[in-house]
Amino acid sequence: MSKLVSKITDRDVDFAKWYTDVVREADLVAYSSVKGSMIIRPYGYAIWENIQRILDKEFKKTGHENVQMPMFIPESLLNVEKEHVNGFAPEVAWVTHGGNEKLEERMCVRPTSEVLFCEHYKNIIKSYRDLPKLYNQWCTIVRWEKTTRPFLRSREILWQEGHTMHKTSEEAKKETLRMLKIYEDFQRNILALPVLVGRKTEKEKFAGAEETYTLEAMMYDGVALQNGTSHYFGNHFAKAFGIQFLDENNTLQTPYQTSWGVSTRMIGGIIMTHGDNHGLVLPPNIAPIKIIFIPITQEESILNTIDEIIKKIPEEYTYKIDDSDKSPGYKFAEAEVKGIPIRVEVGKRDLENDEVTVVRRDTLEKYKVKTNEVADYILKLLETIQKDMYDRALQRRNEKIFDVKDYDDMKELIKEKTGFIKINWCGKTECEEQIKNDTGYKSRCIIEEEKPTGKCIVCGKEATCRIYVGKQY
Amino acid sequence: MSKLVSKITDRDVDFAKWYTDVVREADLVAYSSVKGSMIIRPYGYAIWENIQRILDKEFKKTGHENVQMPMFIPESLLNVEKEHVNGFAPEVAWVTHGGNEKLEERMCVRPTSEVLFCEHYKNIIKSYRDLPKLYNQWCTIVRWEKTTRPFLRSREILWQEGHTMHKTSEEAKKETLRMLKIYEDFQRNILALPVLVGRKTEKEKFAGAEETYTLEAMMYDGVALQNGTSHYFGNHFAKAFGIQFLDENNTLQTPYQTSWGVSTRMIGGIIMTHGDNHGLVLPPNIAPIKIIFIPITQEESILNTIDEIIKKIPEEYTYKIDDSDKSPGYKFAEAEVKGIPIRVEVGKRDLENDEVTVVRRDTLEKYKVKTNEVADYILKLLETIQKDMYDRALQRRNEKIFDVKDYDDMKELIKEKTGFIKINWCGKTECEEQIKNDTGYKSRCIIEEEKPTGKCIVCGKEATCRIYVGKQY
Repeated sequence: MSKLVSKITDRDVDFAKWYTDVVREADLVAYSSVKGSMIIRPYGYAIWENIQRILDKEFKKTGHENVQMPMFIPESLLNVEKEHVNGFAPEVAWVTHGGNEKLEERMCVRPTSEVLFCEHYKNIIKSYRDLPKLYNQWCTIVRWEKTTRPFLRSREILWQEGHTMHKTSEEAKKETLRMLKIYEDFQRNILALPVLVGRKTEKEKFAGAEETYTLEAMMYDGVALQNGTSHYFGNHFAKAFGIQFLDENNTLQTPYQTSWGVSTRMIGGIIMTHGDNHGLVLPPNIAPIKIIFIPITQEESILNTIDEIIKKIPEEYTYKIDDSDKSPGYKFAEAEVKGIPIRVEVGKRDLENDEVTVVRRDTLEKYKVKTNEVADYILKLLETIQKDMYDRALQRRNEKIFDVKDYDDMKELIKEKTGFIKINWCGKTECEEQIKNDTGYKSRCIIEEEKPTGKCIVCGKEATCRIYVGKQY
Repeated sequence: MSKLVSKITDRDVDFAKWYTDVVREADLVAYSSVKGSMIIRPYGYAIWENIQRILDKEFKKTGHENVQMPMFIPESLLNVEKEHVNGFAPEVAWVTHGGNEKLEERMCVRPTSEVLFCEHYKNIIKSYRDLPKLYNQWCTIVRWEKTTRPFLRSREILWQEGHTMHKTSEEAKKETLRMLKIYEDFQRNILALPVLVGRKTEKEKFAGAEETYTLEAMMYDGVALQNGTSHYFGNHFAKAFGIQFLDENNTLQTPYQTSWGVSTRMIGGIIMTHGDNHGLVLPPNIAPIKIIFIPITQEESILNTIDEIIKKIPEEYTYKIDDSDKSPGYKFAEAEVKGIPIRVEVGKRDLENDEVTVVRRDTLEKYKVKTNEVADYILKLLETIQKDMYDRALQRRNEKIFDVKDYDDMKELIKEKTGFIKINWCGKTECEEQIKNDTGYKSRCIIEEEKPTGKCIVCGKEATCRIYVGKQY
């Protein structure tokens, strides 16, 4: 047990090193000679498959259809929308040759697919009957990042990107918020992440969007992770691409657009929110293996007991029996490093009392449970773990949300603490930039429901909103 | 009805044009400014999602795990195995710049991932306990084809690639054939494609493989479509990459390898095997929509009847109700173009006799069925359609498999007919190449169970096997 765990750095000593230790020891990713890219190993990929399965069902339930666009974007197509190309051109991978021949026009590997969807929508949207178009795509995108970290910042990102077109701006705005809510519910209920949900400032919004909404998760170290975004585009992309439809009165109109996406980054969010010094801790609702059974010895009575328990567990509760020839201690440690929510140890001494040992991963608490009650016990415990993990993350996050009197107060505070700081802000980009330059804190999001409690913390002028600022991954 | 169907060229007049008409009119794909790539539209992508879902289940049932490798391969890594690089280097897309900077080493977008898997396997395989490794990847690959056709030959291909490592060559060979069998069963039972399954010749096998097995489907026009392959690599990739493991006796050994893949090309195979002059015809087992209900008018009694029928249909039988404001005739044609296996027309006159009209897409036959019997009737009819589609395709294929006395006989035959020709062959590449140069027919596969019936058709020397030759997509 100690051997595996000892490979993991203490998270309070060096959180960055703890993180890379966990992703390695839990067999989530591996490295290759392809710099900046990662290999997602079976256990890591199984988490992503669960994310895909659950979200895809929600997307389809709300009328979205999956498509597949090309992975390349010709330079001239990327250039159609100016803000957009300025945002992305510096960080794309350029394909210049096919086989031995130089291409007439170079193409980038898609960093996101707005322009591809717009070009397609121009061809297929003709009438109000063609709207809304609610498309989604699961794919890999590429952004040429300088410094990379598994799941958090990678040159290749597995994600989904929804792109929709609507008759009216009201409808498009509604869609933007509807998808934001689907993300929020998913992150809260499935990933047990108590995300802050709000609007991005002018400076921080997506290149080309009119409004960007964001889900901001707080990691164990108090640093923010932007864990998904939903954008309202208005109709200026549609104008740039000349997308028009005939409305009910036979008048030409320009449609309104949204896009929204989440990525494998969420896996980084799970790790850094819930993990501990023993390794990964997975919320039951997303864990590829929810329960692991470990026979202490290979005796028949033990294996039979496990079989009897399993018979009572519904199919959707994925489990594993570790009957390999490793030592029980090693198996315990491995189950802990991998963050499997419940471990059931079945040994001879326990069985003499008609009991087994149940260990919950999140608290490492152990319980002796009667064998004929253990199936029910486990199912209830999985619910408890899911709820407790959310509650603990919420409490930790709330303890790291700080209110400050003034700018000096903020500067003092961040010498000792890291978290989200709620400030009053005038809404001007200069003040936002000054905070970033002075402190390294960037604006996370504006929460519309919270009203200003004083003057702008930087310039002292009238504040227009409350904004959360924080360090970020 | 005629309006939609009239957009489709007669398949006996111009099969190539018929094909592109069908993929367009059935809303399977669209084009963009990205040359050689296609947009897979919702209806086409739904077929691919069904393929993925069914095959992925089979892969997991047989112990395979999904992973995700980088999409880029540095040039030096591609160069490690010589045969392999020679096979692929002329047709890869090269990334030379990241943002504004020239890369130190250019990288290609993966045309296949053997070298990436090998590099990873070198790092994670140390002991016999680490074997077998049974990995699979769903991803997009890129091959810089000069001429492209939707699904059949595209610069971007959606596929899966299995890559496995084994302790012994016997085990690896068994895996190669096991996956071939999974493909065969899938193509026969789900896609209703009567594939020929056999071994590729030395000349036609995969770059770097010791043995390549193939599934050869025959299209309506008698031309072959290679619809999936399974490769046995021996251990020379493993040797080139220095992959070694300690066996049970603590001796260093080199493992044996397989890879196997199928792609969106199979969708092309479905279209060209089953389609007709009214459009696509989908086998029920792969159809995204198995049943379409068309109310002739929007009267309550009609809509209620449809609801009553649907209540009796189990969830897995996906259906659609077309209650749009299009005319019934237009809806019928649309359902036909899209190849929906069963159409149920519910109209007032029929209902007076307590009947509805059921139309099967494959034969276009119509039946009057009592409303209280229609649910059962449909479920049985779906099975019948699936079986009949396979049987018809098999019969058509068998009618286009020809035996020839000698080479002259073959040359005469192919003036009038297109199909697979079974010949006796000495096994020498020169004879194989001569057939190709003389006739355009390439070797499809060797069927081991069939024994030679005479001398080599080309050189007249002793024949070592029976081989099928044919034209190919």
